Amino acid sequence: MSKGITSKNEDYSQWYNDIVIKADLAEHSSVKGCMVIKPYGYSIWEKMQGILDQKFKDTGHSNAYFPLFIPKSYFSKEASHVEGFATECAVVTHYRLKNDGNGNIIVDETAKLEEELIVRPTSETIIWNTYRGWIQSYRDLPLLINQWANVVRWEMRTRLFLRTTEFLWQEGHTAHSTADEAIEETRKMLDVYADFAESFMGLPVVKGVKTANERFAGALDTYCIEALMQDGKALQAGTSHFLGQNFAKAFDVKFTNKEGKIEHVWASSWGVSTRLIGALIMAHSDDAGLVLPPKLAPIQVVIVPIYKSDEELQKISTFVDELMPKLKALGVSVKYDDRDTQRPGFKFAEYELKGVPIRLAIGGRDMENGTVELARRDTREKQTVAQEGLEIFITQLLEDIQQSIYNKALNYRTEHTTDANSYDEFKELLDGKAGFIAAHWDGTPETEQKIKEETKATIRCIPLDNKQEEGVCIYSGKPSTQRVLFARAY
Amino acid sequence: MSKGITSKNEDYSQWYNDIVIKADLAEHSSVKGCMVIKPYGYSIWEKMQGILDQKFKDTGHSNAYFPLFIPKSYFSKEASHVEGFATECAVVTHYRLKNDGNGNIIVDETAKLEEELIVRPTSETIIWNTYRGWIQSYRDLPLLINQWANVVRWEMRTRLFLRTTEFLWQEGHTAHSTADEAIEETRKMLDVYADFAESFMGLPVVKGVKTANERFAGALDTYCIEALMQDGKALQAGTSHFLGQNFAKAFDVKFTNKEGKIEHVWASSWGVSTRLIGALIMAHSDDAGLVLPPKLAPIQVVIVPIYKSDEELQKISTFVDELMPKLKALGVSVKYDDRDTQRPGFKFAEYELKGVPIRLAIGGRDMENGTVELARRDTREKQTVAQEGLEIFITQLLEDIQQSIYNKALNYRTEHTTDANSYDEFKELLDGKAGFIAAHWDGTPETEQKIKEETKATIRCIPLDNKQEEGVCIYSGKPSTQRVLFARAY
Repeated sequence: MSKGITSKNEDYSQWYNDIVIKADLAEHSSVKGCMVIKPYGYSIWEKMQGILDQKFKDTGHSNAYFPLFIPKSYFSKEASHVEGFATECAVVTHYRLKNDGNGNIIVDETAKLEEELIVRPTSETIIWNTYRGWIQSYRDLPLLINQWANVVRWEMRTRLFLRTTEFLWQEGHTAHSTADEAIEETRKMLDVYADFAESFMGLPVVKGVKTANERFAGALDTYCIEALMQDGKALQAGTSHFLGQNFAKAFDVKFTNKEGKIEHVWASSWGVSTRLIGALIMAHSDDAGLVLPPKLAPIQVVIVPIYKSDEELQKISTFVDELMPKLKALGVSVKYDDRDTQRPGFKFAEYELKGVPIRLAIGGRDMENGTVELARRDTREKQTVAQEGLEIFITQLLEDIQQSIYNKALNYRTEHTTDANSYDEFKELLDGKAGFIAAHWDGTPETEQKIKEETKATIRCIPLDNKQEEGVCIYSGKPSTQRVLFARAY
Repeated sequence: MSKGITSKNEDYSQWYNDIVIKADLAEHSSVKGCMVIKPYGYSIWEKMQGILDQKFKDTGHSNAYFPLFIPKSYFSKEASHVEGFATECAVVTHYRLKNDGNGNIIVDETAKLEEELIVRPTSETIIWNTYRGWIQSYRDLPLLINQWANVVRWEMRTRLFLRTTEFLWQEGHTAHSTADEAIEETRKMLDVYADFAESFMGLPVVKGVKTANERFAGALDTYCIEALMQDGKALQAGTSHFLGQNFAKAFDVKFTNKEGKIEHVWASSWGVSTRLIGALIMAHSDDAGLVLPPKLAPIQVVIVPIYKSDEELQKISTFVDELMPKLKALGVSVKYDDRDTQRPGFKFAEYELKGVPIRLAIGGRDMENGTVELARRDTREKQTVAQEGLEIFITQLLEDIQQSIYNKALNYRTEHTTDANSYDEFKELLDGKAGFIAAHWDGTPETEQKIKEETKATIRCIPLDNKQEEGVCIYSGKPSTQRVLFARAY
């Protein structure tokens, strides 16, 4: 098959788009800003969901489901939330269409809602309005809820997976009796996200806290995991917010504590979205297509027979029929592609494009020699491997590939994390696509804003394990006690 | 705990509502017609999803995701679909809110959509519009896709789970090269639904085909599974539609067949929703609360210690700590409720209310005797069982309960399915809450409509395995070749 993927170095943005389209992950829909997630892309999301959902349950959370629509007035209740979320969103004003008599469907103006409904851009308001009825006593706490849902934020400039008007995500919303407990939850879920990114996505992340400018609308603190893409730009891969008592106060959610006193509840919220698929693509893929870490690959091993006669195919298929159950028993997902409508070369290209971690090719001579030809997707190296004990070799290799993909991304990040000690140096590094830049900052939103306006770089986070050191702000020259991580970002 | 459940015989409708609320399954939200699915209710939906999803995958389907919004004009493209779906639905007209300067959030009238967007009431139109780009050749067929999603149909009168403005469902949308293959798919998925209802929900269903009046808007044939609730009313539990080439023609989806000729594609669609939870409740529950079939129970076994001293509790807990892993290893979900804030009687009532199939109570004397007290939820019978081999006893009993719940529902349906041979008899049976009534009908929509207007009974379906017999229509006296199933329905 003709791949037609633009080279990453030539045009990174087009390269990304080509992979999304040609690997059959997603496409733009006819509805502006909304995407269609195609079966192969969705199967990666299902893998992510399955793993995350188990992690949420293992940490004591239950799933629930809240309404898609939020009454407009709810957004006025939490002052800072208004500014952040109640602007670019889909507004439902009517609840009926009618036929105009000429076969055209028009809006029935008599069916106008008294109060407009907003398609949820995030669910803090509707959920905290509900929690008021669920929480009376400390015995009702903590309340640990997660929701898998679609959300809508009207975006003018969209990119598949990275920024779309509608996207899929999970949003955790928890309620606690103390600030400490809510903060502990906020950080625990950040750790869950970081572990998922690193152990499953093969994506090294920096855990940190956002500056006031970049904080979630309504949060006291926003924690995040930040990853680096292959073009040196950063991508926020997940956030976890300590909301204090802001939403509890806005929606009047109180509880009686052990001492019999009435207090407002403390809150956290946290989420990751289909954006993670964008991160996965951009972190690991190459000019031959998608590279998937084995733990998230819908198909981990593909087997392609190479034969000159039906008899040869018969022999190969007999061997494959024995191998597949052995692999499946070890938890390996495997596909045997014996289509006779496509040639092996076409299949090879297709599975490279789709990022299948291991490809086995088996020909007549292999059957004579008791071998297979094994190609790993990440390094594109080929080797001849014995059929005997192949399933053990493969399970070990899948682990190696998983680790190797992570290490490669980690090395990239290490090489692309640089200290800048002056504003000139900072700007030079940025233009050289240096990646993360660690620099001193005076701690003011004004300086941060000016740097952003002048360079398009933002403070991605203040790392959690940050080293304290004396220094001066690269922009203002004022004193600073630590470096923060800057980058241009998605 | 005080249950406060209205008796089923006293007020069936209130009884249903009490169970939904008191068993913590769902509640009305502040958004008119929309519900909040609470964690316990959602965990039943997750069980259903898991089983159905596996069945869909086992029959060759993949999941994908299509946009929430559908351009208004799409509904005009398939003539009969317009009438059925493009009326009561949520209409998005604007994409921005703004602050009016006084702290109020108002709709920004400058941000008006050129074409209104409809929140999907079902996705045939947007999906078939997408399929046009996916299907060119017979090699692209069959296309077997399923979507898990939320949909919105504006309802004036709502009931938790049974009829809500927003609900969760799955919708399968398949494309085929021949009519026969599409019909085969339609019926195959009906079988999948029927098997799920009977083997997992413990709900006997009649498989049948709808009359023209009750057909899905845009379908050539609608197949359905119909179940009987304990008040003698029927509930449509799932539908599978043969759509012919209607949507392919409306959205111009063509393919080149093996002979090189260009044809329109053939289609099916099929869906079940959170309505199934309503069916589950109404089919099996009693005045003590929910009764869940073990295969869908989030908790299958609950263990309550009954102790007078810490030492006694210690002994019981030691035994339970050994028992639980044995049960889990056998695939049984089990909860040990050793809360010291509630008395055993409270816990007993709570788990009865929530429909946990098996409850074990273990006291000091049980520990001396090597026994436990076991209560099954469905029959509310108690028995003393040996601790030795208890896990085997329980797994067997769970199967017995599953079967027993199904048998009870089947007996109820058998007793509540009656032939009517005159219109008077028909009306008398209806008023006596007789359930399904098998009666001759002349096959005309007019007669069906008149019977509906006069009695509120509809033809639920023409059963697939229907016996052919000569007769006369109970309403018109015209000749008929088979009885059809009438009932009042949810």
